[in-house]
Amino acid sequence: MYNMRYIAVKKIKTKNMKKNSLDNLFAPKSIAIVGASSKKGKVGTVLADNILKLGYRGKVYLVNPSYRILKMKRCYASLAAIGKEVDVAIISVPAKFVLEVVRESMHVTKNFIIISAGFSEIGAEGVKREKDLAILAEKHGLNILGPNCLGFIAPKINLNASFAGGMPKEGNIAFVSQSGALAVALMDRASQEHIGFSQVISVGNKMQIDEAELLEYLARDNQTKVIGMYLEGIKNGQKFIEVAKKVSKIKPIVILKAGKTEKAQKAISSHTGALAGSDDMIEVAFEKAGVIRADDLEEFFDLLTLISFVDAPKNAKVAVVTNAGGAGVLTTDAFKDKEIVLADFAKKTKEKIKNVLPQEASVENPIDLLGDAHEDRYLETLKILSTENVGSIICVLTPQQQTPVEKISQVIIKNKKHYAAAMATIFIGGDRVRKSINELKINSIPNFSNPDSAIAALNKYYKWSIFKKAKADNFKVVQIAARKKEVGKIITLAKKEKRTALFFPEAAEVMKKYGINPTTHAAILPTGLIPQISEYPVVIKVDSDKVLHKSDRQALILNVKNAQELEVAVKKLLADFAGERLVVQPMQDKQIEIILGIKKDSVFGPVIVYGLGGIYTEIFKMVNFMIPPMSIQAIEEQIMQSKISFLFAGARGQKAYNIGEFSKIIKGLMEFALENEDVLEFDINPLFIYNDGRASSAVDIKIIF
Amino acid sequence: MYNMRYIAVKKIKTKNMKKNSLDNLFAPKSIAIVGASSKKGKVGTVLADNILKLGYRGKVYLVNPSYRILKMKRCYASLAAIGKEVDVAIISVPAKFVLEVVRESMHVTKNFIIISAGFSEIGAEGVKREKDLAILAEKHGLNILGPNCLGFIAPKINLNASFAGGMPKEGNIAFVSQSGALAVALMDRASQEHIGFSQVISVGNKMQIDEAELLEYLARDNQTKVIGMYLEGIKNGQKFIEVAKKVSKIKPIVILKAGKTEKAQKAISSHTGALAGSDDMIEVAFEKAGVIRADDLEEFFDLLTLISFVDAPKNAKVAVVTNAGGAGVLTTDAFKDKEIVLADFAKKTKEKIKNVLPQEASVENPIDLLGDAHEDRYLETLKILSTENVGSIICVLTPQQQTPVEKISQVIIKNKKHYAAAMATIFIGGDRVRKSINELKINSIPNFSNPDSAIAALNKYYKWSIFKKAKADNFKVVQIAARKKEVGKIITLAKKEKRTALFFPEAAEVMKKYGINPTTHAAILPTGLIPQISEYPVVIKVDSDKVLHKSDRQALILNVKNAQELEVAVKKLLADFAGERLVVQPMQDKQIEIILGIKKDSVFGPVIVYGLGGIYTEIFKMVNFMIPPMSIQAIEEQIMQSKISFLFAGARGQKAYNIGEFSKIIKGLMEFALENEDVLEFDINPLFIYNDGRASSAVDIKIIF
Repeated sequence: MYNMRYIAVKKIKTKNMKKNSLDNLFAPKSIAIVGASSKKGKVGTVLADNILKLGYRGKVYLVNPSYRILKMKRCYASLAAIGKEVDVAIISVPAKFVLEVVRESMHVTKNFIIISAGFSEIGAEGVKREKDLAILAEKHGLNILGPNCLGFIAPKINLNASFAGGMPKEGNIAFVSQSGALAVALMDRASQEHIGFSQVISVGNKMQIDEAELLEYLARDNQTKVIGMYLEGIKNGQKFIEVAKKVSKIKPIVILKAGKTEKAQKAISSHTGALAGSDDMIEVAFEKAGVIRADDLEEFFDLLTLISFVDAPKNAKVAVVTNAGGAGVLTTDAFKDKEIVLADFAKKTKEKIKNVLPQEASVENPIDLLGDAHEDRYLETLKILSTENVGSIICVLTPQQQTPVEKISQVIIKNKKHYAAAMATIFIGGDRVRKSINELKINSIPNFSNPDSAIAALNKYYKWSIFKKAKADNFKVVQIAARKKEVGKIITLAKKEKRTALFFPEAAEVMKKYGINPTTHAAILPTGLIPQISEYPVVIKVDSDKVLHKSDRQALILNVKNAQELEVAVKKLLADFAGERLVVQPMQDKQIEIILGIKKDSVFGPVIVYGLGGIYTEIFKMVNFMIPPMSIQAIEEQIMQSKISFLFAGARGQKAYNIGEFSKIIKGLMEFALENEDVLEFDINPLFIYNDGRASSAVDIKIIF
Repeated sequence: MYNMRYIAVKKIKTKNMKKNSLDNLFAPKSIAIVGASSKKGKVGTVLADNILKLGYRGKVYLVNPSYRILKMKRCYASLAAIGKEVDVAIISVPAKFVLEVVRESMHVTKNFIIISAGFSEIGAEGVKREKDLAILAEKHGLNILGPNCLGFIAPKINLNASFAGGMPKEGNIAFVSQSGALAVALMDRASQEHIGFSQVISVGNKMQIDEAELLEYLARDNQTKVIGMYLEGIKNGQKFIEVAKKVSKIKPIVILKAGKTEKAQKAISSHTGALAGSDDMIEVAFEKAGVIRADDLEEFFDLLTLISFVDAPKNAKVAVVTNAGGAGVLTTDAFKDKEIVLADFAKKTKEKIKNVLPQEASVENPIDLLGDAHEDRYLETLKILSTENVGSIICVLTPQQQTPVEKISQVIIKNKKHYAAAMATIFIGGDRVRKSINELKINSIPNFSNPDSAIAALNKYYKWSIFKKAKADNFKVVQIAARKKEVGKIITLAKKEKRTALFFPEAAEVMKKYGINPTTHAAILPTGLIPQISEYPVVIKVDSDKVLHKSDRQALILNVKNAQELEVAVKKLLADFAGERLVVQPMQDKQIEIILGIKKDSVFGPVIVYGLGGIYTEIFKMVNFMIPPMSIQAIEEQIMQSKISFLFAGARGQKAYNIGEFSKIIKGLMEFALENEDVLEFDINPLFIYNDGRASSAVDIKIIF
């Protein structure tokens, strides 16, 4: 509940926000440290030291009523006492005082970093505290980072406004972390990998400044080439997708999203109070927004390094050069199920390569320079490849008896500028390759110790570049007010009758408004009066919100062949389910059963679910998700990449099912979902589809409110 | 063809071999180096230096007709000239002289290491050369390692009988590599990881000594705790499975098997001439043999390190202790789809932990010690965990501002002996954790920089321990001579009639002998005489080896309702397919269609294939493989873990299909496959199975020879 509230608040806020409001926060000319201290081990002490001693040239004010002088500087009793505006106040006082401090200082600054813990992550009391703070911020247009965060670091201005130690190298990676501890670990590792940061931002509880807002801010930051995020939850799914989709058109976003398992989601909620969101939905959302998802911490690091160092491959073709056959084979294996591929060299190219290599060398890709290769073979081969139209070149090396490792790395480094291709290396070993790997990294050539990691990272980078180039789907669903009203009336009527679901004839009427074709049907009231049925056989079912699982409860009778049988069937059902309505439908022959539904996701709102029906739904785990809104083209494209694409592709000599018809049904469902937010559960199960010209038909429709 | 020949030769050899014949080869008391040299850069020079200068205490003879004195030692003109037996001769002369050298030296030694390249890996000429050498070896009972190999290294006796540089640390890992270059790279890396080797063996072309033989040898080697193999091909699949299954009951085998993709298989055949074998089959074979498969080079290294350092987890429960919530969440995520699980602590345990930690700490697993944790919190928590029944304990750490990293690693190291659980760490960072990680490794505590890698490796190790404990399936198929003869007669008859496939009635007769129930049927000869049909509707099909894909060629007519319709149908088919036979079968209602077949794998021989039939076969990629022989229990178990287990488990309220019946059918197929090796292709498609008591029924049976 709490979470949902703030999504609403946030939406309003975004609209009113000035575009550059975060610049003052993240590149301040003056800072006040509220809770500055000189006691060993205190966060306020570390903050003051970090801000004062690491080269920051802005104005720094220390605030703590217990001191007059601190760190040889004047110490103010309160922010107000400073007597002038400051760009940002960083607050490290006990949680219970935070609200008061902010309230008293709003005329001094609009930007706050709240380091203090003790908010929504600790349960009810903290939730209340955070809520009050959020209301205050909203009311007065404040920017608040945190609470329960580490702060941020901007190496370019030598500002470490956090209680993490040291100053990472300046560079082009913006790293946003929902875990302070991971930010610290990654900065520590970054120094040995020779990568640098434009910003390191710890977001803590993301009370107000969340991932979407930071994406917008960092997209505009020229120093940032790649945005890396460690996220445990996403605050507002729709806003996130909207922003991320735009930002991904400008620069790559790499996200390590925790919470794949239920246990992990539980752990998350206990340590930052965030809602992790279903992992399936995250996958779909990231795909939709062009976000590069890192599968694990190692891949996250690999991706940031790769993107920081090299530009995206300009095509899918990769050339691999190796001095070790086995390592070449492993690299080849790594291309399994990838979009990037080993380039097939032209005959002419192969001949050229043949000319510079010994006879036993392999000039197929991977090019095997043989174990006794010196730097000349790498050099000559790279020269030839420089005129080839490949998107990436990977140099593989193992340190064999006569391998001049450093000379080879020098050759690669010196000639880097001659290649339009993305250049990476896979030097495998320990002591004998360490120095060279270091040299490569200093010269912005990413090295991977594992071929599979190299190819996986390169592949994801390439896929992003495809997303970047593709036309954006900025479709918006237009709600039709008249239709919405009509459906509302039907539901209101049912509610008045104290029902929680629509009868089939009502649901059928609603479906028709969204272009979905229900199965022909006739209603039988509890009185048992049987209507004229023109064609047999039929199926007869109980139509009640109390009997939702009809087969489990023997509430349907199949294959009723004539009027006499129908009479018997009606009597039986009305005896077993007294006072209920029945519905009669023709027996249809099944070709393919589809299940369709709307799932309410706590983060992304209503999501369309579709897949094979019948026993296959659960068994084959063939369910697919779509997050509205989507254009009809985008819907078609996604279906053709889904787990049931085979139906519409016409597999194995079968006639294809109608993709146009099915896409329109999903489009209808999206409109239904967005116009009818009070519907709690919705599914069509089954929808029969045909590949012989017959129209699809929704056999059972559940609309529950 | 070449490959298959040698499988046969090998089989005989294995039987005659003395059990300890490889001891002299891999732990020799004397070595002759044929082709020893002192010219810089020559392999013979490196070999001589490695053997002479790294501390080997056995007798060393140099052989090279060009020298009298070499490296200040007497140099012999030939092996024969030494005048006494030596344990092993290592040969590095041009390929064309190798056969001659071996032939002339067989009375001096039975053990050869052939370093020289220029054999099957270079094509026809080399294949011939290797074949001649193999015949010689077979005839005279020689042991030959290679050709085209690096040699081997036995650190325990300071023997580097290879042209790789240096001497790796002595330890408990035996590493067998089909790529010399990868062996060199791994040894280089091993030194910085503080792991050591009992043996490093480069197998080259595996002309004679192959993976199976080395597994047998290394299983007996007490110094070896874990056998690691990099393989590009497996020489004799059945022998490999048989041996690996036994060895896996003694010690873990970890294999990095290259050749997952077709391109990689091509690359393999070009650089060692090996047949890579289908990767699906490799998966099944490894599973059957209890082999731990490493997914990539990094995991291979992780597994070797883990197993080298710690004993297998004694149960599936894992305790995780962390000073960083985010890293804890990532570790939790890593348990997704694993057999090992985060332990649920008893209430009492949680209370005990609560008592030693600050109030805000989380005592759920992962136990969050909080970011300001010092070594005391790790120590107290580990003490409590030492009395818990967990199989593994993982200590996670990120180097936060006040984290005493080294003190924490010391606490972990010092208390290691108190825990029965497998202990591993996930210290994440760079400079600030490097020294501690090094200390951990020196003390045999494996550290992983990536939570997912840690959990994946631990999970595979645990799964191996389950295999080790489980009862072995040593089932052998007994061939029934009489049946084999009867089937042989039927096939011989068909061959005489110049047919390449059996008629349905013949195939049905064969199937019955193996306990498989064919659909009721009646044959119609080309004359068109129609037999008495007792029940309609029926289906009528052309029964001919020329019409194998009946529906594609309109060679069948469904739903023939009575005798008149049958007459018309027979006429039509005989008009379209003059001179062919027909077969009539009752129309059966489909519940589930199964496809069954036998695939001849170049490495593993006949393999049973089974899965869902109809359109689902290709679409869902639901095909499963079984490598015979297997007991009926093992068959049942594998089906219940297969992609169609849902049929026999009774999914979603459906009645279960008969697992006993289906297992017997597969058992029958295994017997059929082993008794009828000349059958080229076999499948039953479809086999109808039912869950209502009706017997299964083989509707179409293809037996092609």
